[in-house]
Amino acid sequence: MGDDAAVMPLIDCANIACGFHASDPFTMATTVALAAQHQVKIGAHPAYPDLVGFGRRSMALSPAEVQATVLYQIGALDAFCRSHNSRVHYVKPHGALYHDMMRDEETLRAILSAVRAYHPQLKLVLPAQSNPEPWRQIAGEYGIALWFEGFADRAYQSDGKLVPRNQVGAVHHDLNAMVSQAIQFAAGQVTSCDGEVLTLPIDTLCVHGDTPQALAAIQAIRAALQGQ
Amino acid sequence: MGDDAAVMPLIDCANIACGFHASDPFTMATTVALAAQHQVKIGAHPAYPDLVGFGRRSMALSPAEVQATVLYQIGALDAFCRSHNSRVHYVKPHGALYHDMMRDEETLRAILSAVRAYHPQLKLVLPAQSNPEPWRQIAGEYGIALWFEGFADRAYQSDGKLVPRNQVGAVHHDLNAMVSQAIQFAAGQVTSCDGEVLTLPIDTLCVHGDTPQALAAIQAIRAALQGQ
Amino acid sequence: MGDDAAVMPLIDCANIACGFHASDPFTMATTVALAAQHQVKIGAHPAYPDLVGFGRRSMALSPAEVQATVLYQIGALDAFCRSHNSRVHYVKPHGALYHDMMRDEETLRAILSAVRAYHPQLKLVLPAQSNPEPWRQIAGEYGIALWFEGFADRAYQSDGKLVPRNQVGAVHHDLNAMVSQAIQFAAGQVTSCDGEVLTLPIDTLCVHGDTPQALAAIQAIRAALQGQ
Amino acid sequence: MGDDAAVMPLIDCANIACGFHASDPFTMATTVALAAQHQVKIGAHPAYPDLVGFGRRSMALSPAEVQATVLYQIGALDAFCRSHNSRVHYVKPHGALYHDMMRDEETLRAILSAVRAYHPQLKLVLPAQSNPEPWRQIAGEYGIALWFEGFADRAYQSDGKLVPRNQVGAVHHDLNAMVSQAIQFAAGQVTSCDGEVLTLPIDTLCVHGDTPQALAAIQAIRAALQGQ
Repeated sequence: MGDDAAVMPLIDCANIACGFHASDPFTMATTVALAAQHQVKIGAHPAYPDLVGFGRRSMALSPAEVQATVLYQIGALDAFCRSHNSRVHYVKPHGALYHDMMRDEETLRAILSAVRAYHPQLKLVLPAQSNPEPWRQIAGEYGIALWFEGFADRAYQSDGKLVPRNQVGAVHHDLNAMVSQAIQFAAGQVTSCDGEVLTLPIDTLCVHGDTPQALAAIQAIRAALQGQ
Repeated sequence: MGDDAAVMPLIDCANIACGFHASDPFTMATTVALAAQHQVKIGAHPAYPDLVGFGRRSMALSPAEVQATVLYQIGALDAFCRSHNSRVHYVKPHGALYHDMMRDEETLRAILSAVRAYHPQLKLVLPAQSNPEPWRQIAGEYGIALWFEGFADRAYQSDGKLVPRNQVGAVHHDLNAMVSQAIQFAAGQVTSCDGEVLTLPIDTLCVHGDTPQALAAIQAIRAALQGQ
Repeated sequence: MGDDAAVMPLIDCANIACGFHASDPFTMATTVALAAQHQVKIGAHPAYPDLVGFGRRSMALSPAEVQATVLYQIGALDAFCRSHNSRVHYVKPHGALYHDMMRDEETLRAILSAVRAYHPQLKLVLPAQSNPEPWRQIAGEYGIALWFEGFADRAYQSDGKLVPRNQVGAVHHDLNAMVSQAIQFAAGQVTSCDGEVLTLPIDTLCVHGDTPQALAAIQAIRAALQGQ
Repeated sequence: MGDDAAVMPLIDCANIACGFHASDPFTMATTVALAAQHQVKIGAHPAYPDLVGFGRRSMALSPAEVQATVLYQIGALDAFCRSHNSRVHYVKPHGALYHDMMRDEETLRAILSAVRAYHPQLKLVLPAQSNPEPWRQIAGEYGIALWFEGFADRAYQSDGKLVPRNQVGAVHHDLNAMVSQAIQFAAGQVTSCDGEVLTLPIDTLCVHGDTPQALAAIQAIRAALQGQ
C-alpha cells in the first residue's frame, strides 16, 4: 500500500500480507524479493479470508478453521522466502484476527497450534502487555516464543491497552509524538493518554507503512534511536 | 469431491487442490491428514485463480504471475504436509493450467521455475508423450525431473494425445476398458482409438477420484496389476 | 446442490443463492431459467461474502455493509429474473446472516432497508415466531411485509425456536415426521420436542433441497397437503 | 481509485466497477450515491471475475458464461441506482473483456445478449471506429444502440485504433495534448501518431479517473469545450 521500496532499507522486520486481506501471489513475490535484498526479517501477516473488508471484520471461524487458515498463509508466504533462500521469521495476525486472539483464548491457541505446526522456531507477535506473564505461559505450552510489540503511532490507555481507533487522540499524527513514544518504549515505558507513566516492555516497534507520513516517521525514529 | 476416506488406502499418490480452483484451508488440512495417515505421497495440484470455473478456463497470466501463483499454492499445501512431518512430493498443474503448459513453452518454463524455487527435488507431472525427450530437455535446464502420467479412463489418439473430452468415446466408463488400459500401460503401451498400438511410457497412472465409479475402478486396477 | 430439475416442478417458491455463499452467474442463469419455466416464485437468498464457509460463519459487518451486501445480491439475481420477464418476489437471508438478523436488530433493520431500497413490494422471510407482532412492527416501519416460515424437517423447542443443529434430534430424517409436521403447520401449530403443542403461524413451508431425501419429502408433503 | 468527490461534479457519465475487477457492495453504494447527487449518468463497468488481475487478464469464458457474468454485474449495480430512483444508463465492459469483445464476435454477441436481457434501452460503449457501420449492424440485431468513445489521453494509430499501452507515446501525459485531442474529437476527428488526420466520430469522451492528473485534465477539457 505504501512506498515499499523507500521503506524497506530502513526497517528490520516487514509484516507481509498473504492474500487473504490484501496482496496476491505476484505482489508477495515482489515484496519478498525486496525484503530479501535488504536482509529484512519477514513476518507472515495472516488474516481472515476477507479481501473486501481488508481483514478488519471479525468472522466466526471454528478453532480448526483458524488453525488451517493461518497455517495455509504461513506456508504460502514461506514459499517466496524459500525462493530467496530465506524463511518466515515470525507471525503477526492482522486486523480482526489480531484482536480476536487477544479476547478469545481458543483463537489464540488455534494460532499457536498453527505456528508450532509450521515450525516451532517461529515467533508470534502480540500487543505489548503490562503483565505479559500469563500470555507467555500459554505460548509456552506450545513451545512458542512471543514478541510483544509497541505502536509508535498509537496512544495508550492507563491499563496498557491501545486507545480504540474510534476515540479522539487514538492515533499520533505528529512526528514528534511518535519519536518521543519510540524513545520511551526503548526504556520499557509509555505515557498513557491520562499522563500516567506505565511499564510496558516491548520486543519490537511497529510503524504502519500505509500512511502518508510513514517514511518520515521511520526515518525520524531510526535517527533518534541511533542517536541514543 | 469423491469418497476420499475410501480411496486413500488404495492409492500411492494424491493430487490435492490448493484453494484456487477448489478446496480451502480446512479441507486441505483434513485431506492431508488422511493422506499422511495412509502414507500416500502428496502432490500439489495448483490452478489458475478461478473457483467459479473450477480452474478449467484459460487465463492470460504473465509468466511471472504463473510462477508466483504456482509457488504460492505449493507452499500453502506444503504447510499442511509439514504439520505431519511430511512434504509435497510432486506438482501436477490442474485443468487449463495443465493444458496451457503443454501448448505454451513460456507457461511451462514459469511452472518449472516455481517448482525449482520451492525445492528442486520436486517432480513435475506431464501427460505421457510418445517422444518425451524434448520435454525432459527443457525440464533438465531447471534441474527438475518429470513424471509422465497415463490416464486409465481416457481414450488416446494415434499421436499419443488424449481424445478431447468433447468427442464421443473420450472417456472410458467401462471398468474392463480401464483395467485393460492400465495393464497395457504397465508394459509402456496403449491402444489408440483407431486400434493402433502405441509406445507410451508412463511413470504414474491417474484415475480421477471425482466420478461415481472411481473407487471400483481403483480397486479393480490395483487387483489386476498386483495379479501380474 | 440437489436435483433442481426434479424438485422445481413440485415447489411454489425457490430460494436462489446469489454467488456470495454458493453459486455463480452461470449457475444462477440456469436455475432462474428452470424456475421461470415452472412458474416458481423466486426468492433472493443473500449471504455474507464467504464461499469457503458456505455463509455459515458470522461476520462483523457494519449495518451499512450489510445493507449494501444484500442490495447487491438482490439486484444481481433480479437481473436473471428480468431476462425471463419475471422478478424477485421475496428475500430470505442465508445461514449466519439469517441467524444474525434475529438476534441483532441493527442487522435486521439494515436488511429491511435493503429490501425497501430495491422494491417495497418484496417480502422478507423470517423464522416462524410464537409472537410475530414485534417483528411485524419493525418491518412495518419500512413498509415491508413479512413471511414467517416453518421448517418441515427441523424440531422445535417449546419456546417456538428451532432445536439447535448440534443437539440430538434437531433434524427430522424420517419422512413421516416431516409430513406430520407439515400437516400440523397447515393448522398453525407444531409439537415441540418436549411434546407441547404450540401455536406457530406460518406463511411458507421450507424443505431443504440439498439433502438426499429432499425430493421424496417434497413429494410426500405435497401429496399429504393436497389430500386434506 | 481516484478523487471521486472532486471529479463527480465535472462529468456527465461515470463508469462504475461492479465488484468483479474492483470495488465491492459498500463502495458501489457510496459511489452511486455520489453520482446520483450530481445527476451523473451511471454506466455499468462489468469485467471478468479477476480482482487479483484488475480484470486485465483475458479469461476463456464460454459465451453463456460471459452473458451471465455481464448480466449479474448490471443487475448488481442497478440495485444501487434503484435505491436512488435512478437506473444504469449504459454498459461499458472493462479491461480484457472490453478488448475481447472487439476481437471476438461471440464475446460481443454474448455481451449484447446480456444488455438486451436486462433492458434494451441500455447503450453499449465501444471504442471509436473509423468505420462504425459493421458494429452498428451487429448491435442492431439485438436492438441495442452503441456509443462510440474516444480517449482524450491515448494516442491513436492511423488505422483508428489505440497505440498499444506497451509502446512509447501510447498515453498523453501532457494536459495540452489531451485538451487539443478533445477539441479535435468534438469535430469528429483525431490526429494519429503518424500525423495523419483521421475521421473518427465519437459519442462520448473518456478520461481515466485513476491517474494523478485526472482532475486537472477534466477541468481543462471541460473549460476548453465550453469555450468553443
